[in-house]
Amino acid sequence: MNRVSEIRYCPIKHRWTIIAPERKQRPGEFMVEHRAEVAPAEDPFAPGNEAMTPPTIFSVPRPGDSHQWQVRVFANSFPALRVEGEVVREGVGLNDTVAGVGAHEVIVETPMTDVEMADMSADDIVHVLQAWRARLLDLRRDVRLRYVLIFKNKGQEAGASVKHAHSQLIATPIIPTEIVEELRSCRQHFRLRERCLFCDVIRQELRLAERVCLETEGYVALAPFAATLPFETWILPRQHRHDFALATDDELHGLAIILRDFLRRIRSLLNDPPYNMVLHTAPSPHPRPGQPNYWTTIEQDYHWHIGFAPRITRSAGFEWGSGYTINPTPPEEAARFLNEADPDRD
Amino acid sequence: MNRVSEIRYCPIKHRWTIIAPERKQRPGEFMVEHRAEVAPAEDPFAPGNEAMTPPTIFSVPRPGDSHQWQVRVFANSFPALRVEGEVVREGVGLNDTVAGVGAHEVIVETPMTDVEMADMSADDIVHVLQAWRARLLDLRRDVRLRYVLIFKNKGQEAGASVKHAHSQLIATPIIPTEIVEELRSCRQHFRLRERCLFCDVIRQELRLAERVCLETEGYVALAPFAATLPFETWILPRQHRHDFALATDDELHGLAIILRDFLRRIRSLLNDPPYNMVLHTAPSPHPRPGQPNYWTTIEQDYHWHIGFAPRITRSAGFEWGSGYTINPTPPEEAARFLNEADPDRD
Repeated sequence: MNRVSEIRYCPIKHRWTIIAPERKQRPGEFMVEHRAEVAPAEDPFAPGNEAMTPPTIFSVPRPGDSHQWQVRVFANSFPALRVEGEVVREGVGLNDTVAGVGAHEVIVETPMTDVEMADMSADDIVHVLQAWRARLLDLRRDVRLRYVLIFKNKGQEAGASVKHAHSQLIATPIIPTEIVEELRSCRQHFRLRERCLFCDVIRQELRLAERVCLETEGYVALAPFAATLPFETWILPRQHRHDFALATDDELHGLAIILRDFLRRIRSLLNDPPYNMVLHTAPSPHPRPGQPNYWTTIEQDYHWHIGFAPRITRSAGFEWGSGYTINPTPPEEAARFLNEADPDRD
Repeated sequence: MNRVSEIRYCPIKHRWTIIAPERKQRPGEFMVEHRAEVAPAEDPFAPGNEAMTPPTIFSVPRPGDSHQWQVRVFANSFPALRVEGEVVREGVGLNDTVAGVGAHEVIVETPMTDVEMADMSADDIVHVLQAWRARLLDLRRDVRLRYVLIFKNKGQEAGASVKHAHSQLIATPIIPTEIVEELRSCRQHFRLRERCLFCDVIRQELRLAERVCLETEGYVALAPFAATLPFETWILPRQHRHDFALATDDELHGLAIILRDFLRRIRSLLNDPPYNMVLHTAPSPHPRPGQPNYWTTIEQDYHWHIGFAPRITRSAGFEWGSGYTINPTPPEEAARFLNEADPDRD
């Protein structure tokens, strides 16, 4: 059996799956992931325990003590994809496959074992966002990689296997379907109207004021009109910005402020729920063979944003079989609850 | 606040969500669904307790005792959609919405409180499949409804809120995205090659014999090449059949046999896992306005099948943010495990 990951495309459902046997579990091993509280001495992400994880790729020094790290990035010990190798695209009968070349990294967000992003100061959150930006800029230089997806799983039910606050990134030789869908919608909208679709959504939502969860000078948090999950939220810069990697430190500071406020409201409202957060930004600007100018208008038509969803409902057979979801919380109500929530209750 | 469900379309992500406030939970009510063992007297789906649920829509009489039911169908008490009303399609600014007209029904599969589908005889399973067929044929006569999705959630982690064995159906005025994707792939493939895509997949997989989980005279169970979840399986008729609703009793009996064998192997292999099962069949044959012959070749190009996935892994931020998944179990290994599993171990 080949131990290398492989990215496979389904000719019927038109979606990609990473087949990652390095992360493989035996049939009996599924569903046994009960996790005990971790003492700092056993926390693999704590300072002093760096030897328990792969070597540091990037770090942000601790303010006031540059010998220590505040944010630390390293390769995932159980990677879904590895950086070594050629990107081999292959057809196998009806099927398509791409060798599983890519990167899978862990971004430890704080040296503290028991601190969550909602507990951090805005300045501490800025350091995390700076690490995201730095890794995006670095990985984009690799011409094999077409997209870098940065995401955060908080809590076991949201997929986090280590409690210590961290985000992750997975860089792939393909652009994920979800992003392709957004890029296409934005490009089509721009061609017809010469306006950014997300800018139009922001303007409409601010005017209607029904689904606005939070607003600051530079950012807005919206419950999307067709929210697929209770309290699904998008956080977007109000000004047109296509690429998170180009955000200035000032812009990251503004983002940290709304993110902190938002996460604290969610924590107080939903009783510290598990959640997923994901950064959607422009893809790496490498041309695709035969389509050198495929995303030509991306600077005008795309708009980066953060997607957030608490994991408080379960998807079931209907969702899986239909591709659509049942959401019991109208986004208008979610927005109202978030407006009224107390960010300072711990 | 409007209490009627609404089906909303996202102009950016191109997917539908049913906003179903009748099923609404308050923020504090999420994640509290712990379920105790149920005594038959408290089982709302047990014979004698019919008054605890809405009136019977359809039933299959118990063999040898036609005063009792073997399979019973009624409307879901907390429906995502209701049958009353006009299908109103509306644009709201950038957004699209369809009034939440539809049907949401529960199919109780057995009178026994503690019997699962894997415990039933093939004949008992045939009665369930006959109920599926009958409800499909009946609901298709409603011209407002474009699709009837039949699915089964087994176990709390798979979304079942009642333990008593049951399946469900949701009929909607739109064709679900997942089905549209399959119909499109099949139609495109047929136009180019004049062959059914699923028939081609079946032929290829039987020839390669790497991902075949089970075979009978009439059916085959395959681990799909790009399986998105460990042990995802498709069960398909070997002969070209586009519509489950047209299956004969003999064909349903063949399906019951492979389904029973498959569910017993899965139970023994994965320690009685929660699972989702879904029937993908041709849509209701009502023409769409302006596109009267949209699915003209469907009898030749589509192929019904049952999709199965145990809920033994959690999807996390990466899956949610990218639209693709990481599967730690290569489908070739899943097929081998299922080949070797013992269907008779309880």
